[in-house]
This record gives sequence, C-alpha cells and structure tokens, in this order.
Amino acid sequence: MPDVNTIRRLDAESPGFSQSLDALLAWNDEQNPQVEATVAEIIHAVRARGDAALLEYTARFDRWQPADSGALEVSRAAQEAALARIPADMRAALERAAGRIQDYHGRQVQESWQYRDAEGHLLGQQVRPLDRVGVYVPGGKAAYPSSVLMNVLPARVAGVPEVVLVAPSPGGQTNDSVLAAAAIAGVDRFLQIGGAQAVAALAFGTESLRSVDKIVGPGNIYVATAKRMVFGRVAIDMIAGPSEILVVCDGKTDPHWVVMDLFSQAEHDENAQSILVSPDAEYLDAVHAEIERCLPEMNRADIIRQSLSERGVLIRVADLDAAVALVNRIAPEHLELSVEDPHALLPAIRHAGAIFLGRHAAEAMGDYCAGPNHVLPTAGTARFFSPLGVYDFQKRSSLIGLEPVAVDALARDAETLARGEGLEAHARSAACRISKG
Amino acid sequence: MPDVNTIRRLDAESPGFSQSLDALLAWNDEQNPQVEATVAEIIHAVRARGDAALLEYTARFDRWQPADSGALEVSRAAQEAALARIPADMRAALERAAGRIQDYHGRQVQESWQYRDAEGHLLGQQVRPLDRVGVYVPGGKAAYPSSVLMNVLPARVAGVPEVVLVAPSPGGQTNDSVLAAAAIAGVDRFLQIGGAQAVAALAFGTESLRSVDKIVGPGNIYVATAKRMVFGRVAIDMIAGPSEILVVCDGKTDPHWVVMDLFSQAEHDENAQSILVSPDAEYLDAVHAEIERCLPEMNRADIIRQSLSERGVLIRVADLDAAVALVNRIAPEHLELSVEDPHALLPAIRHAGAIFLGRHAAEAMGDYCAGPNHVLPTAGTARFFSPLGVYDFQKRSSLIGLEPVAVDALARDAETLARGEGLEAHARSAACRISKG
Repeated sequence: MPDVNTIRRLDAESPGFSQSLDALLAWNDEQNPQVEATVAEIIHAVRARGDAALLEYTARFDRWQPADSGALEVSRAAQEAALARIPADMRAALERAAGRIQDYHGRQVQESWQYRDAEGHLLGQQVRPLDRVGVYVPGGKAAYPSSVLMNVLPARVAGVPEVVLVAPSPGGQTNDSVLAAAAIAGVDRFLQIGGAQAVAALAFGTESLRSVDKIVGPGNIYVATAKRMVFGRVAIDMIAGPSEILVVCDGKTDPHWVVMDLFSQAEHDENAQSILVSPDAEYLDAVHAEIERCLPEMNRADIIRQSLSERGVLIRVADLDAAVALVNRIAPEHLELSVEDPHALLPAIRHAGAIFLGRHAAEAMGDYCAGPNHVLPTAGTARFFSPLGVYDFQKRSSLIGLEPVAVDALARDAETLARGEGLEAHARSAACRISKG
Repeated sequence: MPDVNTIRRLDAESPGFSQSLDALLAWNDEQNPQVEATVAEIIHAVRARGDAALLEYTARFDRWQPADSGALEVSRAAQEAALARIPADMRAALERAAGRIQDYHGRQVQESWQYRDAEGHLLGQQVRPLDRVGVYVPGGKAAYPSSVLMNVLPARVAGVPEVVLVAPSPGGQTNDSVLAAAAIAGVDRFLQIGGAQAVAALAFGTESLRSVDKIVGPGNIYVATAKRMVFGRVAIDMIAGPSEILVVCDGKTDPHWVVMDLFSQAEHDENAQSILVSPDAEYLDAVHAEIERCLPEMNRADIIRQSLSERGVLIRVADLDAAVALVNRIAPEHLELSVEDPHALLPAIRHAGAIFLGRHAAEAMGDYCAGPNHVLPTAGTARFFSPLGVYDFQKRSSLIGLEPVAVDALARDAETLARGEGLEAHARSAACRISKG
C-alpha cells in the first residue's frame, strides 16, 4: 500500500463491513427548505406574470438583460453558424455519436398492439408520442453537448412533434458546442433561459412559450427542486443524485485503465462515488498505488481527491459471486464488469443503470458515443428506475372493443362485482348491455 | 329539454365555449399545507420509531389496538377462509376477472434484447422485475376487491418476487371480499395498516417490514401526499386525481345506456367528471331527459347529482371530427366511442387513458373484468402517463459490450468529446483503450 491514503479500503469479510458500507453509501436527499421557498416563489411569479417574470429572473440570475421575450430565442441560423465554427474533429465526433445514439434508440420504439381474445373481444394498447417536450441543459462552464444529444434524440426518435431546448446563457453567452449539438439533434425551439424559472415556464407556459407535457434533463438543485414541484402537472424524468461507478475486476485489467475509470466518475463533482470491488488484494494495492501516482497529473485533481477520499472505496471480496451480491445491494448507476467472462456474471445482476461488459468497455465511451443513453438512475434508484429512453417519450392508451354477441358473460360478471362494491350505476351500466333475447 | 337542470349544456360553436370548458375542467391540485405537515410528521415518526409508531397510528386512526406488530399480519389461512365465505357468484366472477386480467397483462411483458452493431459491439437492455412492491388498497366502506386484482396481478405477471399488500382495517375489521381477492391474486404478505403510516412503513421499512422498491394503489389525500413525499426514495405509480369519463356519441346509442355510463363515473365521488359530446342536439335532449328520469332511482343519487351539476356537461359539437379535437384537448381518463365505426376515429385519438370502442363497450366492464387495467391517468395526465401495467414493475439496465478490435474509433471520438467538455479523466479513460500497435 502507498504511504498516502487518498481512498479508503474495506474488506467485505471483516466485521463491521456492512455498517461501514452503509455509511459510505448514505446520501442525504432531504430537501432544503430555503431552496424550496425560493423555487416556490419563482414558480408562482412565472405562473402569475409569464414572460415579464421570466425576463426579470434571467436578468437577475444570468446577468444579462434580454430586450424582450423574442431576445430569448436562439435561431436555427445561430445554431448552424456555431456548428460551422466548432473544430472539425469535434463536429465529426458529435455527428458520429448522434448517429450511434439514434441507431440504438431506434430499437426502443414501442408499437401499438391489439388482439382478439377467445370470445372475440378486441383488446390492446395504442402507443403514441407525447405532443411537446422540454429539455433542460445546463449552461455556462459545465456546458455538455453530449447532454443535448442524449436528451433530445430519444424524443425525436419517439416522434415527439415539438422539442423545446432551454439552456441558461450566463452573461448572454451560450456555449458553441451546445448550439452545435442542438443543430445536429434538431430542436424546434431553443430558448436561452435556465433555473427554476425555465422549468416553471415549460410547465405552465407563458405568452411566448406553450406549456410542454414532460421536462427532462439535468440541472442544479434549483432545477431539480422545480422539476419535483411541477411533477404531476407535467411528467419529469428522474430526479438525479450524484453519479456513481462500481467496477468489478478479477485483478487482470491494467490498473491504469481502472484508475482512469474511477477518476472519470470522481472528476464530475465532489459528491460523485467511485467503487472498485475485487477478490484480489494485491490488485487493489496496485490500483491504490496507481491512484496516488496519477492523481497529481489530473487537471481536476482537487475534485477527484475530495470525491475519492470522502465517498470512494476499494473493497476486497471473497470471490466474484460476492462481488455480484454487492452490486445488487448497491444498485450502481454505472457497473463495469472488468473480468475475463463478463457474460457469465450477467444473469445474476439484478440492479444497475448501465452494465459495461469487458475490460475495453469504459464508461466514458458510454457517456459519449457507444449509443445507449447516459441519463441513468443514480443513488441506488436502479432498483426501480430505468435509463432514459424512447419509452419515456411515448405513452399508452388501453383499447377495449367488446363484441355485442359475446358481451353477456362479461356484463354479468361486471354486474356481480359492481353490486359487491355497492356501485349501482356501474352494475346497471353493464347489465343494460345484456341481450334481451 | 327537461324542466330540471341537473347537468349543464354547452355548444362548442358558441362564443365563450373555450373559457366555459376550461373553467369546468379546472382542478385545484394545490397541496394542502395542513395535510402536508401532518403527513411529514407521520413519516418522520415511522422512520424514527418503526413498528412502535405504526402501532400507535393504527390505534389512533383505525380505532383498534393491535397487540404487537404480529397482530397486523393477515395470514394466508384467513384470506383463504374469506374466499370460502364470500358468495359463490362473487368468487366465480373474481376468479374469471383475475384470469382475464392475467391473460391481458401477460402480453405486456417486456423481454431483454441485444444485438451486435456494424462494428461488432454488443448493445441492448436487460429487463428485470423489481424485487419488492407494496400495494395500497383502501379499507372500510369503500373496499374494492377489483383494486386488489388490478394492482397485484401486473406485479405478479412481471415476476416481482415479493408483493406486500396493505389495507387499513377500521375497527380491526377487513372486508371479506378484499381478503378473498388477495387470496386469488396471491400476495406474499398482507398487513392491516393504512394511511400515511402504511406508506412510510413501506418506503422506509420497520423492524417487522422490509422496505419495498415501489408503492402503487389508490388512497385518500393523506396516502397520496405520503406517496408524493417518498417519491425518489421509492418509485410510485401516478398521483390520482378525480375520475373522469368522456362519451362521444353519434346520437344512435340508447340514451339509457349512455346515462348509466355517465352515472357510473359520477357515483364515485362528487369531484368525478362526466362529459357527453355529440353532434346531435336532439340526442343530447333525450339523454338530458333520461338523466332526470333515472337519477331519483339511484342509491347514490346525492353524489351523482352533485357531481353532474358541478362538473358534468353535455356538449354539442359540429361533427365527430370536432368531437375528436375535444377529446385530445381534454385527454380523458376514460373515453367511450359510442359510434357506428369507432375504429375510424381511433387513429386521430392522441390522448386518453382507456378507449372503449363501440356501443357495447361500457366503462364498467373495463373497471372490473375486460382485462386491461383500471388504474388510469386522470385529470388530463393521459397526455403523458399510461395505464398501470407490467412495465411499471419491470426496469431496464443498458448493456454495452465493446469489441477490443473495434474500440479505437469509439475511443477516439469519446476522447475528442471529453476534451471538449474539459473532462480529462474521461478522455484518458477512453484513450488508454486505444490499441498501441
């Protein structure tokens, strides 16, 4: 083991392991009353005063004064101009990534289905895209064109007729790569607004913006709180917590590769969580040493160090079966199976947002261009949430077509059950369909 | 038109129609701060004191004193005994309904999928059931065995290993038909608890109850508020508002049938909404007269009268196309297409929870036994929510297996895009996989 200890070590066989792990995984998701009050006020103002409030908050929080609501709009020409301006290799990489994302998501499209049952009744579901979707993309320094592609393209593939992109533009400047990604993904409107005021405008509409049916995309605590508050009025995607990676390694992957994978998670922010699980204690030593060797070289060394020391861990387990049991307990957002035969472990994996199979499958490639979505359930919510997908932009209507000649049996059962529940009109509504013959 | 006017009339061609309709559809979904405070306190107490708090609240709100947490449990034998006790026709109807619900929902099961792309990389999604689900069923007078079947069976079909049913038992009594439905659907545990305390126990667990991953099922304002508050910690189904029906009729369905359909919605509660849309003004007169004639006969006449007079409406439209436009604007929970050729209208319907096709397809049969789920998006949320289904009890993990020989191109693009976003560890994590040859 190296002299410095940036990251903690645990042994799953030791007494107290379970408690130590729980403490490390604990994430305080309690809402902040101060933030809640501020967001509630902003939502109320935008609901009540529309564009006027939107312009005021933009001036206050983004530090630029749009002349009017028209000034919030980024034209298609401006997006195309940015696409022409960005470096050629960046443009080509974005376009190839968009192609792969579209291809993968095309396989998620759900079709309407119907069948005739034994009695001849028609049953099924009609599947339709949502009418209007809002995509929130953070602006400023942490402007991620990959988020534009990952959030807009599934909606486009689903056939959503109107996709509205919103991104704050601090000081009135929007990042060229975000504009370029919007041009590639194809959005119907692009508005330079952000924060809780953008979420409120999308949910309730203003004079210049028609309300949408669903709001997706990452954002800070104000954006996340606003999304939670408008949920029910519109649909939202997940409420994102900090990002995690869990690498399961048999001890035979180049330690440098695994270290860069752990760092790639840790560099996102101080609350990100990087976990390595291996049955090979010497391998954990080697990774530990490589962490200490590489850390000073990284441009985000301070963030990585804080993330690893507060939330990171290298865990020795008895064997790969024990590693899989840990995976299912943690339900990580990203899981790398950096082992000889990852497919042998797959059937036992119950909970993970995305599963990367094999030593070459680095999370970073999934983040940008492998094809699957990088919007994934965090903080253990892979137990019940799924990656963002085309299915998030489609919804279903049940279909129930009853054949008159076969309706009597159904109507009698409905009548019996309705009377049992004391609902007379239900009973009579069914019974009047029974044939009189 | 009859002398009495239980229900209002509107003409879609008249000036002011749009405003009148908006006023009628408006539903105040603002949260009640008093209820919120009470629910927050209950959740806090159950989180902090577990079973002890659960027993105290059960004594206070359900007016019976369980001896200990074991007394909350309803045995399988007690469920079977109730099944043997209920009337034979009720049992047979419940069993046939369960069979139809299972058959329909069996067609919703989503399978894992994977493919190799042009470069040989393996991509796809692994689909798995949730581990543990809690189903809330209201108790007391409004005890609905149909809700047990509709909420439990999709989870069973999805393959959820553990389904926990909770239902309050006012005075310590649980309705026989609810017990019988639990025996038919097959639940792993049945606990006589209810209210916000039951939701808190399901979300956070107690000494005697392991926490679940998702909570579904209808409940009063305290239950709905508690579900909203624990959302994120666990998944929940929709937040249900009052129930609605919209009947589109060409004027050729027996007015009595349509009146019973409108009543079947209105008898649920005073806030339920019943709407009839027809191009035939004389038909609307006939339905109006039939409403006044039948209303005094109904056992829930007072509830029906209040619902129809406050929220009901008969609307004349120019033609069936105008009716469909209204449907898409209202996005009703239940839509009956009581017309000669309902399939001709279907392609234009964008938003409805369930679509009943033809004069014989009464909503009441869908509520109990046609097969599709009766848990549907209310209050216009059919714009973005779907019926409860097997897909609500399954979740997905992305699969990303990269072929070493084909990884260079992907790694180079990921490196370019990561450097563009200023994420060095992402760039190096991808780049170190590029072959050195």
